[in-house]
Amino acid sequence: MENLYDKLKKNSKSGCYPFHMPGHKRMAEHPFLKDFPNPYLLDITEIEGFDNLHHPEGILKSSMEKVASIYGADKSYYLVNGSSCGVLSAICGTTKYGDTVIMGRNCHKSAYHGAFLNRLETKYLYPRIIEEFGIQGGVERDDLEAMLKAYESVSAVFVVSPTYDGVVSDIESISSVCHQYGIPLIVDEAHGAHFRYGDTFPRSALESGADVVIQSLHKTLPSFTQTGLLHIKEGYVDAEKIEFYLQIFQSSSPSYLFMAGMERCITFMETEGKLQMKEFEGYLMQLRKKLEKMKCLKLLSGSLRGSSGVYDLDGSKIVVSSVGTAVNGQQLMDTLRQQYHLELEMWGADYVTALTSVMDTRQGLKRLEDALTAIDSALEGDMKAEDGDRGNKKGLRQEIPGKACMPLYEAHVREKRRVRLADSEGLVSGEYIYLYPPGIPLVVPGEIITQDIITTIISYREAGLPIQGLKDYRGEWIQVV
Amino acid sequence: MENLYDKLKKNSKSGCYPFHMPGHKRMAEHPFLKDFPNPYLLDITEIEGFDNLHHPEGILKSSMEKVASIYGADKSYYLVNGSSCGVLSAICGTTKYGDTVIMGRNCHKSAYHGAFLNRLETKYLYPRIIEEFGIQGGVERDDLEAMLKAYESVSAVFVVSPTYDGVVSDIESISSVCHQYGIPLIVDEAHGAHFRYGDTFPRSALESGADVVIQSLHKTLPSFTQTGLLHIKEGYVDAEKIEFYLQIFQSSSPSYLFMAGMERCITFMETEGKLQMKEFEGYLMQLRKKLEKMKCLKLLSGSLRGSSGVYDLDGSKIVVSSVGTAVNGQQLMDTLRQQYHLELEMWGADYVTALTSVMDTRQGLKRLEDALTAIDSALEGDMKAEDGDRGNKKGLRQEIPGKACMPLYEAHVREKRRVRLADSEGLVSGEYIYLYPPGIPLVVPGEIITQDIITTIISYREAGLPIQGLKDYRGEWIQVV
Repeated sequence: MENLYDKLKKNSKSGCYPFHMPGHKRMAEHPFLKDFPNPYLLDITEIEGFDNLHHPEGILKSSMEKVASIYGADKSYYLVNGSSCGVLSAICGTTKYGDTVIMGRNCHKSAYHGAFLNRLETKYLYPRIIEEFGIQGGVERDDLEAMLKAYESVSAVFVVSPTYDGVVSDIESISSVCHQYGIPLIVDEAHGAHFRYGDTFPRSALESGADVVIQSLHKTLPSFTQTGLLHIKEGYVDAEKIEFYLQIFQSSSPSYLFMAGMERCITFMETEGKLQMKEFEGYLMQLRKKLEKMKCLKLLSGSLRGSSGVYDLDGSKIVVSSVGTAVNGQQLMDTLRQQYHLELEMWGADYVTALTSVMDTRQGLKRLEDALTAIDSALEGDMKAEDGDRGNKKGLRQEIPGKACMPLYEAHVREKRRVRLADSEGLVSGEYIYLYPPGIPLVVPGEIITQDIITTIISYREAGLPIQGLKDYRGEWIQVV
Repeated sequence: MENLYDKLKKNSKSGCYPFHMPGHKRMAEHPFLKDFPNPYLLDITEIEGFDNLHHPEGILKSSMEKVASIYGADKSYYLVNGSSCGVLSAICGTTKYGDTVIMGRNCHKSAYHGAFLNRLETKYLYPRIIEEFGIQGGVERDDLEAMLKAYESVSAVFVVSPTYDGVVSDIESISSVCHQYGIPLIVDEAHGAHFRYGDTFPRSALESGADVVIQSLHKTLPSFTQTGLLHIKEGYVDAEKIEFYLQIFQSSSPSYLFMAGMERCITFMETEGKLQMKEFEGYLMQLRKKLEKMKCLKLLSGSLRGSSGVYDLDGSKIVVSSVGTAVNGQQLMDTLRQQYHLELEMWGADYVTALTSVMDTRQGLKRLEDALTAIDSALEGDMKAEDGDRGNKKGLRQEIPGKACMPLYEAHVREKRRVRLADSEGLVSGEYIYLYPPGIPLVVPGEIITQDIITTIISYREAGLPIQGLKDYRGEWIQVV
């Protein structure tokens, strides 16, 4: 039987170029990464002189203070259990049992988990749909304000920006509405840790007035997978309460390898990395310009800025739609892998996403450009030959039509039975259903299952999309309350 | 300012021999560790063919199935957030909100966190005290049975075995009492992952009838810090419920470096590691024999087996008491570090603990033997010269006299005020107070502060022990409910 270690080593020599996380892109020949010693050598415990993450008084305290000053936070914390533990801590640390929160309905499952743990009432802020691509965009200030007017005592607002696809919401307006109501804004900026290091990226959430910001370092920067930061701006939140939960949701034996890797990543980005980022942004802009000219495939491009649900876009995420062409997302992903040895981050029903980072080489980006433009030309030829009217015409919309009828935790703890998904219309879900990636629930426990959802899930299943959450892995049965 | 990465590199070249975690002992020249490639090369995300820890269907599923068959579990899970997340998941996954659990009062703080999250009523099973050493021993079957008779509906029992000091409780009897009452036994075996790989170690909790067992891999085996295993024996627990919480308490971007490191560690221990363990056990027995002959310092030795609170002992933990000598724990630790370049795991008021593992060399163990026997001879000389009657005569007992008067979560959420610790007698604590290491609370929120506790804490503070938990780091003030 093949083992994981050998398979990982083999993968590292496969020559397949990674347009996916982590952001270090396994560039072990790069000066920043190549001198890293045998990892076991650095992997210690809390011995004399090396401080304690859960009780920092020495080198970790000053290291995190430096991070805070770089990012403009009052307090910053290293996360060794990914953004997930930061999200849990931010939600539990800004609410009391049974409170009400407003959450973007396009949040990562960890936000739902936080709400579940603290038995919160969740009111959902629905993202706008980017019609042209059928994908979810950002959330709008006015939608939030209407909710804040409608619901009396909301303890916190939680939104994700940028989304997995790079869509950024207007955090400045959103935070200012929250503050008018005297409540904190938590932003899951897991996909935007690189913003502050570039000129062409959107403004970071912390600079835009957010009170708590969670960033994955590994998603877009050269850091180990499972590392992240939580930043706090004081005023609307109690840092001690969030710290209390960070101690719960993170190992009491935090990895020094991870902590050193995070510090090193940030130090690099503040020095050589910043220069390298300038260069990278230049190549990236060239790439995007070329991809904007594709005839059949369509790049999620900056021209959408200002349209509904798109306040800004993170250019480092290359989202390419195949709506209206003869191929679907999976076929496009497979072609890129098999014919061009490019491994992308993900595929949806009608699109693929490539993640680029400061560690990408000019040659790497050129390979992506060449591959996509070649595929585009071939598609164009096919369409002309066949009179252009076949294939996957209308995209599958990433809409979330669910309506909650009982709180998350209640649906969790209630007795359940299983029914065929096809027969579940009108019943209350006892499970999550989501695509992973990106891990945003299509259905949340406590939501009524509509015919729309059933149709969507069945169409996803038929398209071979990675549906998860359901206990029945084949997706035929669903647990209902 | 010194940075963490450089300091870790410097430490790796310091020549100081690690008698502390992690169990790989940074033996980068060892054949098992030396070929490990640049860690960034192996650090991927959930790409095609590499499965998903939270939804395993491929290589991770079969890898964890292999672990289960090695350990004799029905299900085993890799933990990337340390034993802490396993403890949280085991507790939350075997109880419902507001249930009652019986917990060893000497549990790690993560067990208290689990009880807090699920708002449990906690009934404490107090460990016996090993009088000679003033340290906590194990828990007794009869004490547990009396509690099970006294309290009506207990959902689960949670104990730690071995303790940080290597004291093992009679898990076979304890699990059988639990099963008589139809409830599961969870064992925090964080310090005993090596048991099954040696002939001289105690029987593992899983072999002794425990239903859920959590093990740190890094503490005693060659694995990265922050890695662990959770094992389940089905019958008294619902694996799905525990899995549900593992998904909450672990990053949705789990580290492949960690997972590969865990798999590799277990594969090694099943092959070459087993032979190496035999050799190591031989050296260890020799070391212990020599240390048992010390005149002033006293080894926590196998001769205690069968005495109150000591069912069995893990010989790989070298606990040396300085009670009755001229030195205290800190001084002994400092001497070992400064004069012999040996860094031990921890020091208590009157003892030090050295952790040994399969990765220790004969030379390394000899260094410890030589150092301790030399210190012992010097102490003997001093005592003779001074007629043997001075110094730190009576050990500080690690007793926990606390009595709970309100549930943990209630004390957590109630309004608090701060008072001087010296003036807090009779009040209800709103905080944890513990020594770290080992991280076992002396006081838990909701417990009445007695004069005994105040005296103990003040004496610890005066002895310079690492008191944590209190918001006031200097330990002068305490938050009370």
